[in-house]
Amino acid sequence: MPIIESIPNVSEGRRPEVVEAIASAIRAVAGVRLLDYSSDASHNRSVFTLAGDAAPLKAAILAMYEQALAHIDLRAHQGEHPRLGAVDVVPFVPIEGVTMAQCVELAKDVAREVASRFGVPIYLYEEASSNPARKNLEDIRRGEFEGLAAKMASEGWAPDFGPASPHGSAGASVVGARMPLIAYNINLNTDRVDVAKKIAAAIRHSSGGYRFVKAAGFELKDRSIVQVSMNLTNYEKTPIFRVFETVKREADRYGVSILESEIVGLVPAAALNATAEFYLQIAGFKPEQVLENKLRAT
Amino acid sequence: MPIIESIPNVSEGRRPEVVEAIASAIRAVAGVRLLDYSSDASHNRSVFTLAGDAAPLKAAILAMYEQALAHIDLRAHQGEHPRLGAVDVVPFVPIEGVTMAQCVELAKDVAREVASRFGVPIYLYEEASSNPARKNLEDIRRGEFEGLAAKMASEGWAPDFGPASPHGSAGASVVGARMPLIAYNINLNTDRVDVAKKIAAAIRHSSGGYRFVKAAGFELKDRSIVQVSMNLTNYEKTPIFRVFETVKREADRYGVSILESEIVGLVPAAALNATAEFYLQIAGFKPEQVLENKLRAT
Repeated sequence: MPIIESIPNVSEGRRPEVVEAIASAIRAVAGVRLLDYSSDASHNRSVFTLAGDAAPLKAAILAMYEQALAHIDLRAHQGEHPRLGAVDVVPFVPIEGVTMAQCVELAKDVAREVASRFGVPIYLYEEASSNPARKNLEDIRRGEFEGLAAKMASEGWAPDFGPASPHGSAGASVVGARMPLIAYNINLNTDRVDVAKKIAAAIRHSSGGYRFVKAAGFELKDRSIVQVSMNLTNYEKTPIFRVFETVKREADRYGVSILESEIVGLVPAAALNATAEFYLQIAGFKPEQVLENKLRAT
Repeated sequence: MPIIESIPNVSEGRRPEVVEAIASAIRAVAGVRLLDYSSDASHNRSVFTLAGDAAPLKAAILAMYEQALAHIDLRAHQGEHPRLGAVDVVPFVPIEGVTMAQCVELAKDVAREVASRFGVPIYLYEEASSNPARKNLEDIRRGEFEGLAAKMASEGWAPDFGPASPHGSAGASVVGARMPLIAYNINLNTDRVDVAKKIAAAIRHSSGGYRFVKAAGFELKDRSIVQVSMNLTNYEKTPIFRVFETVKREADRYGVSILESEIVGLVPAAALNATAEFYLQIAGFKPEQVLENKLRAT
């Protein structure tokens, strides 16, 4: 059975009863698993991780909208994290037995239904984007809820679905399809934060590095070391081992070595398998050769 | 649900109708999956791969014995591969949610039942072995079916279960528990077979190398290269990346590099994950961080 993941971000992280109402609405949909959810009070935002096939996932997202719209009013919302809507972002991610094209179709289908049922305008983003200028979430969200009415009225910012002006309490939503993200950190054997910042600049897309890397350099003061903190946004096209080797080589230039790396949260098995294939120079490897895959397929 | 794998080797590889009768008997047991089976006519031997929880697996092995005993007479059996019995070897391998100790228990339970129901003497081997001199399959099988009566009468060779003399047509069986095997080959960028043979000798247990490595050096004449061909018999204690790095370093001594490696057949996901952890220096990695594992567990 195909598995699609969705990670909706909702603009409520302070009222547990609202977060629980949304979680319950998702759980009530047969065929959907709520894998995880967590709230951040300073961001005033919650992130839900759910998985299932297209039809139940669509039903769960609609159920989530119903709860979010009933309880959240962005006119009274404050938090550190930028946001455009009560349901701020809804990405769909292909995991197993499903193509990116099918996730794009699902994103458009959900967007159309949300717009028509709830009157919330929708911008499509990433792989579902209709327009290169509206591919990146940051570009779409710039100006936030407070600047939304003016932005929507400006040239090039008519939404992909729904009314041409914001929903009064729920603003707009950004819906789309993307590859799984890998949150990946590399810790360096030095307290020189300039080294971490220079390496981050060398590898991230925005300053000339790899296309699917976002990166920043930080101090880990309690350990007197520094960290290159990354999001790998397409592990197939910019694989984790290539990023690791580049960080290692750049650090070497400063006489610095890699202390360790860490994967924050989840990582697709394929990203780890590709790493083993690379370093062991394995030729002609097939996913069916993984014992557990074979067991599950038979 | 726990998953145990069993890979029984049966002394029949020339009569498809007998092989099919055994396969059908295995398939008829609910809760057992027959993942694969293949026959070798020159070896006159077939290998079945099945998986399931302990109770159904035991039932499938007993059903297999019933067919094998009805159709195979070792007094008339010829083939290149050494063998002691109609059902020659029955290993149990822990795959998921089950310990080695539980597989040892299962091996003993099956051995006891086979001995009492069919009168076939059983030697326990590998992790189930009762005696260090009877741990290795090769040692137990030395002398083969033809020498079995004399061997069983000699000191130290009373079977672990069953009668003290061979079953007339079915000989004896070797039953036990072991880790999954990884069949792993490394191809070298040279036509010098002496280099492959020296490296094989350097890494294999029998000549002073790693404890859980069996290795030999071969020519691949059609490609004008050579191969270090290995069985890794415990990937947790002698991991694949350590073997690879040692082969690479030893080859370097002769000015030879690694062209590629290949995994023959199946490999446990944990062996690949450990490889990615090693090369990426990942600290604190947990199997639950693999997205697919998380999806299946929730």
